[in-house]
Amino acid sequence: MSKSAISVSVFIATSLDGFIARPDGDVSWLDDYEPMGKGEDGGYGELFNAVDSMVMGRGTFEKVLTFDWSYGTKPITVMSKSLTEVPEKLKGSVRIVALSPLELLEKMEAEGCRHIYLDGGQVIQSFLREGLVDDMTLTVIPVLLGQGIPLFGHLEGDIKLNLLEARSWENGFTQSKYQVVK
Amino acid sequence: MSKSAISVSVFIATSLDGFIARPDGDVSWLDDYEPMGKGEDGGYGELFNAVDSMVMGRGTFEKVLTFDWSYGTKPITVMSKSLTEVPEKLKGSVRIVALSPLELLEKMEAEGCRHIYLDGGQVIQSFLREGLVDDMTLTVIPVLLGQGIPLFGHLEGDIKLNLLEARSWENGFTQSKYQVVK
Repeated sequence: MSKSAISVSVFIATSLDGFIARPDGDVSWLDDYEPMGKGEDGGYGELFNAVDSMVMGRGTFEKVLTFDWSYGTKPITVMSKSLTEVPEKLKGSVRIVALSPLELLEKMEAEGCRHIYLDGGQVIQSFLREGLVDDMTLTVIPVLLGQGIPLFGHLEGDIKLNLLEARSWENGFTQSKYQVVK
Repeated sequence: MSKSAISVSVFIATSLDGFIARPDGDVSWLDDYEPMGKGEDGGYGELFNAVDSMVMGRGTFEKVLTFDWSYGTKPITVMSKSLTEVPEKLKGSVRIVALSPLELLEKMEAEGCRHIYLDGGQVIQSFLREGLVDDMTLTVIPVLLGQGIPLFGHLEGDIKLNLLEARSWENGFTQSKYQVVK
């Protein structure tokens, strides 16, 4: 079975040195910045509206549970081999699966899913290693954190990318959208 | 003594995952790309003409020794505690010093130097940790290498940056110039 019918998008922010969070998962450093502009979300809403579903790992899920829940309107799949219980208030919109990336995509494709938004460092790395990411939109925040949870990890070989779009904002954010070359 | 009279610029290329070279120092992956454009060097020549001198570490120096020498017209200082001998053909244009970043800047300022171009991961990291970098121009190559020599390293605290300029080219390179906030 090919995974060609399901499209996998990454949309994430990192520090200039490639961290998505501080070592303890803290992302409050993102709050130090002015908005990109009035009503400007850097394309997040457009992607969120376009996808059928979100997929994230345990770490990201546990982090977003501490926020006001902002993923409301899309079903969420949490990839975890240790979590089993979905919090009561999220039953119906969140499920937990213990599958490999390819197994999950096959399952979701069979369920009719055509486009997913992938969030979280470990999950993104595992999909990248298996060649299952289609495009990545990276927003780079103008700070060096010097330590933290990295977006990217070890790969056995190069992954080539096509730059689709690059832009920047007055607040110092830059954003690049890449297509992963298969 | 303040270091305010000497300006320190970084100009370097990295993979999207932040590596300046493969684990063995290989940078031939940079050769896989089309030029940025006819006569376009991404601002390298402009910076090179503006600086009085180059400063690099042993690793970068030993790497550039394997190339056709392209740093010809500016004096070079190599920071190394292990190297002592300058190759015969480079005597007169290259010197080796075993100084800290601040000691080196004080020495070079006393020599009349006003602007240096800093090259190489370890040296850039050590200057950043001591707050001695003024601006950084990073060109991001559209590839994930998955392993290699990182540009950035551990920091004890955040380093904030001001985005001065961002641009991209048809070959997929993006470039951001930052001022380091002191």
